[in-house]
Amino acid sequence: MRACAIPFTAVRFTGGLLHERLQVHCAALLPAAIRKCDETGRIDNFRNAARKLRGQAHGPHVGIYFNDSDVYKVLEGIAYTLQQEPDAALRARADEWLTLIADAQESDGYLDTFFTLARPADKWTDMEKHEDYCAGHFFEAAIALDQATGDRRALDVASRLADHMAHTLRDSGRHWVVGHQEPELALVKLHRATGDRRFLDFAAWLVEQRGHGHGRGGIWDKAGWGPSYCQDDRPARELERVTGHAVRAMYYYTGLADLSSATGDPAYVPALHRLWENVVGRNMYVTGGIGSSRANEGFLGDFVLPNAEAYCETCAGIGLVYWAQRMHGLTGDAAYIDTLERALYNNVLAGLSLDGTRFFYVNPLESAGAHHRQEWFECSCCPTSLARFLPSVGGYLYSADDEGLSVNLYASSKAELAVGGHTLRISQDTAYPWSGSVQVRIEGSPGSVLELRLRIPGWADSFALAVDGKPVEPRMSNGYVVLLRDWAGASEVRLEMPMSTRLVTADPRVAADAGMVAVQRGPVVYCAEETDNPGAFPSPALPADPVFVERHTGFPAGGAPSIEVLSRGTNARGLTLVPYFAWDNRAPGAMAVWLGRRAAPTARLYAYGGRTIG
Amino acid sequence: MRACAIPFTAVRFTGGLLHERLQVHCAALLPAAIRKCDETGRIDNFRNAARKLRGQAHGPHVGIYFNDSDVYKVLEGIAYTLQQEPDAALRARADEWLTLIADAQESDGYLDTFFTLARPADKWTDMEKHEDYCAGHFFEAAIALDQATGDRRALDVASRLADHMAHTLRDSGRHWVVGHQEPELALVKLHRATGDRRFLDFAAWLVEQRGHGHGRGGIWDKAGWGPSYCQDDRPARELERVTGHAVRAMYYYTGLADLSSATGDPAYVPALHRLWENVVGRNMYVTGGIGSSRANEGFLGDFVLPNAEAYCETCAGIGLVYWAQRMHGLTGDAAYIDTLERALYNNVLAGLSLDGTRFFYVNPLESAGAHHRQEWFECSCCPTSLARFLPSVGGYLYSADDEGLSVNLYASSKAELAVGGHTLRISQDTAYPWSGSVQVRIEGSPGSVLELRLRIPGWADSFALAVDGKPVEPRMSNGYVVLLRDWAGASEVRLEMPMSTRLVTADPRVAADAGMVAVQRGPVVYCAEETDNPGAFPSPALPADPVFVERHTGFPAGGAPSIEVLSRGTNARGLTLVPYFAWDNRAPGAMAVWLGRRAAPTARLYAYGGRTIG
Repeated sequence: MRACAIPFTAVRFTGGLLHERLQVHCAALLPAAIRKCDETGRIDNFRNAARKLRGQAHGPHVGIYFNDSDVYKVLEGIAYTLQQEPDAALRARADEWLTLIADAQESDGYLDTFFTLARPADKWTDMEKHEDYCAGHFFEAAIALDQATGDRRALDVASRLADHMAHTLRDSGRHWVVGHQEPELALVKLHRATGDRRFLDFAAWLVEQRGHGHGRGGIWDKAGWGPSYCQDDRPARELERVTGHAVRAMYYYTGLADLSSATGDPAYVPALHRLWENVVGRNMYVTGGIGSSRANEGFLGDFVLPNAEAYCETCAGIGLVYWAQRMHGLTGDAAYIDTLERALYNNVLAGLSLDGTRFFYVNPLESAGAHHRQEWFECSCCPTSLARFLPSVGGYLYSADDEGLSVNLYASSKAELAVGGHTLRISQDTAYPWSGSVQVRIEGSPGSVLELRLRIPGWADSFALAVDGKPVEPRMSNGYVVLLRDWAGASEVRLEMPMSTRLVTADPRVAADAGMVAVQRGPVVYCAEETDNPGAFPSPALPADPVFVERHTGFPAGGAPSIEVLSRGTNARGLTLVPYFAWDNRAPGAMAVWLGRRAAPTARLYAYGGRTIG
Repeated sequence: MRACAIPFTAVRFTGGLLHERLQVHCAALLPAAIRKCDETGRIDNFRNAARKLRGQAHGPHVGIYFNDSDVYKVLEGIAYTLQQEPDAALRARADEWLTLIADAQESDGYLDTFFTLARPADKWTDMEKHEDYCAGHFFEAAIALDQATGDRRALDVASRLADHMAHTLRDSGRHWVVGHQEPELALVKLHRATGDRRFLDFAAWLVEQRGHGHGRGGIWDKAGWGPSYCQDDRPARELERVTGHAVRAMYYYTGLADLSSATGDPAYVPALHRLWENVVGRNMYVTGGIGSSRANEGFLGDFVLPNAEAYCETCAGIGLVYWAQRMHGLTGDAAYIDTLERALYNNVLAGLSLDGTRFFYVNPLESAGAHHRQEWFECSCCPTSLARFLPSVGGYLYSADDEGLSVNLYASSKAELAVGGHTLRISQDTAYPWSGSVQVRIEGSPGSVLELRLRIPGWADSFALAVDGKPVEPRMSNGYVVLLRDWAGASEVRLEMPMSTRLVTADPRVAADAGMVAVQRGPVVYCAEETDNPGAFPSPALPADPVFVERHTGFPAGGAPSIEVLSRGTNARGLTLVPYFAWDNRAPGAMAVWLGRRAAPTARLYAYGGRTIG
């Protein structure tokens, strides 16, 4: 069963962690990202390109050659934010930026300030120079702006740019392998936004260019990594395992899934399933982070998951969320949301400081104390990825098909949705991810005979369910508990999933985690920070007989418990753990997710010789 | 830290499972046990023995040679019940039986209706004939009666009997190995009740008679099992592992622990620790049942734990509770209560039908459908063990020492206790064992600076704790979370232990459970019954991707959830599980605790490739 995501515009958060992160986005992240685009010359690049095109005096291009993409991503974030809350100043900024961008577009549709200003003779000669990547981000921004403001200029600029690309790269009979995937998924989105098949066809052509050797020389030699670095070693449908640069891979697979959904052609689906199993089962950290090598910003090989050296780029985590959502869309299987949720609440949220002003590009699972968030980066893809991701996070709560509505993420929120020809008003009241108790109120129009599907996360061993106070005969499908009834009038559904703090171990083939354990509570992975645990580093260890005490200390705010790890048997002081995403927000110091285990001070028997398994 | 149990007389249940079982004891079990003692000639044996002693016409002894013990055990149960709730008819019954027993005591103190009536010339010639075992049960009954009624006749009869035994067996210079241990622990209890050291000395002498070959010929040949059958193969302090008859072993070890406590002599303690580890780590079922062989009513060897053939005698489970409490008394270690609780809520409670009228002697973990509770047995030790155990179960809730009070079991109840020279009023409000939320109200006399220790059961991974609504800095010791403060005035302590349904596996060395899983929720083990799962037997199996739905179906009553096991991914009907202790209370049929696992119908990934461990 294919499932369509319900757009974030239908959802309004009313409380909880995601709501709080969204508020921080509006109050701190987005204003800072806008300011940084100004301060770093990213906006001036557009002004100067426009001046040059008008034959006026102009300054040079400044910064990295793909800096346009940051402007587009922030503009996309502005557009999403406007769709949630009108804001005249923000709207004026969007208009101003769109005008600058439109003015920087050349008469043939070309748009890239680096080449316009610095290398006008070299357009479309170097597959690695991200003209296509930047274009993809503009497509996404344009679609968001169109939805937010109805200003048709955005889609006009985008269409002209896409047509220019198709004409230049495809219709001229040449080959072109996108150096950093992104336009593929963006072109499918542009097809959906405009209803125009030509963008879908061009996306399909770009995908099919890959893996046939056309990138030889052009993009293969980047940093000496060869064709697998940018997933150009074989055609998409033959891919067996993830390789190379993590963000490239995620955007590629997301695009493949989008193409599969849009065309209905199942050609890429077997490969996507193979790749998913390979990424999630063998190449993903417990935080949902991916990419274990700083050298290639990507993958090292199955089960090679060093912790201090982990890359786990924030953009890659967000990319995994995108891909997981698309895989869920193809299958309706809640297992994909388990991974989406793992990446979201751990790797992705870690990318932003609690106050919204500083960012991690790299999210290791261990630090000796020198790794800290920064206000911006020369290559600032991660802050701008967060700027467009966070305001759209409400779009991950629900999906729907003709038969019903799936609740994928739990968060206090209200939504009004059209499902199978009916209108549903649905609200959630929950402290998730800090509690597994969820109250769902649902009110359907007359005759709303639909399935309401509540996702049972993989971390939940058990649950109890009641509708209007009465227990119901449970039915599971695809990882959801399914309630089929006429939702006309108001109903209250209570889902109780006992949430305790648990130890997790890595796959035994992960050498880096051998003999180590991590601590997880619901979907949230915890870590030990030196500031809470002076003297415990460099090798913080749990007692052999741990018990976890959940304490509300006020850090992080918003109802999150910190966890005291104590030895059951002795009075030895244990570790204090905090949610991984909240680390490096207090006194700087070392950090670890994977923890050793101390030998038991005395042998104690906890009954039976058996063990609990998850 | 040694801990003294708070007697059940200080505790009044106010609700919950144990309260309900206690009510069933009063309403059904105890009246039935009294009636059966009458109907089966057990009471007439005393009447006839008394008539014979008075030179009157009398009938023969009827029934098994140790049937006196059932009368004593029921009398003990009557006395415990009277201590909780005065009842004129029950009191009259106790007086009547005590009179009959006193009249059946011979002038030299001897008391055993089988020998008095049937084999007067053979007294104390056959170590296997349970004169000593029966005497032990009378000691316990007499102490209980003395506490309940203050009628000194009970302790007088007991003292004369004990003195007669010491005189006959010890002071005459002969050797005597108790055929079925019980008088040892009872003599320590008699010492405590009377303050008389001579009973303690005699208990110590009986223990030291064992393991030196004195039982050769006398008791070794019973059923051809040799000296290890009755733990006579080596002296107590040299015991390494459990052997032989399970109830004998439990009563023996209980007596050894009692002796150690009473004398302060640590000589037996290392052996007790070795034996505990051997029993609990290698010879105990997940239900807390012990004894894997019907042939010897006992142990077969480490990790030999067949399920359908399991013996798990109700008396042995109760014996394990006794021993565990004594080990806890020696050490103060909550780990012993974990095992006590496992045995109590599973093996022991299974011994009684929900309506209190039928009994299991044998508690297998698997049945093809022919195993059912009976109203009584020719050898009816198990019903009469329950009759004395259940009314004393309140005695397992608390223990105390000079520094504070330990809450060992959670159950809605009120108690007024003397601890370290202070008076504490304590009440619990909880749905335990169906919920891990416990509210404790405590009110101390002025200056009650004491530790309140709340046991964190082994099944609980994590907990949260608040006093008067405020979270507290947690400290663990010996498996308890410890709160040290002045309890003057009223305080409210809230303990929240998230309770979910979980899979457990056996030690991999248990061949019978290889590849199988059991389902446990809090301390309660669940099972599949054929009546809920037609067609699932003989090999009921869980899906490979189970999720547990906790449903309140009304069976068993009192807030217990039954558990629907569903496949997360498919709509396949799973199993319905009910608490093991409640099995065989509806339509007869097959039953299984250990369940197979079906191969996954489709491969589904639940993130990360790691697993949760307990």
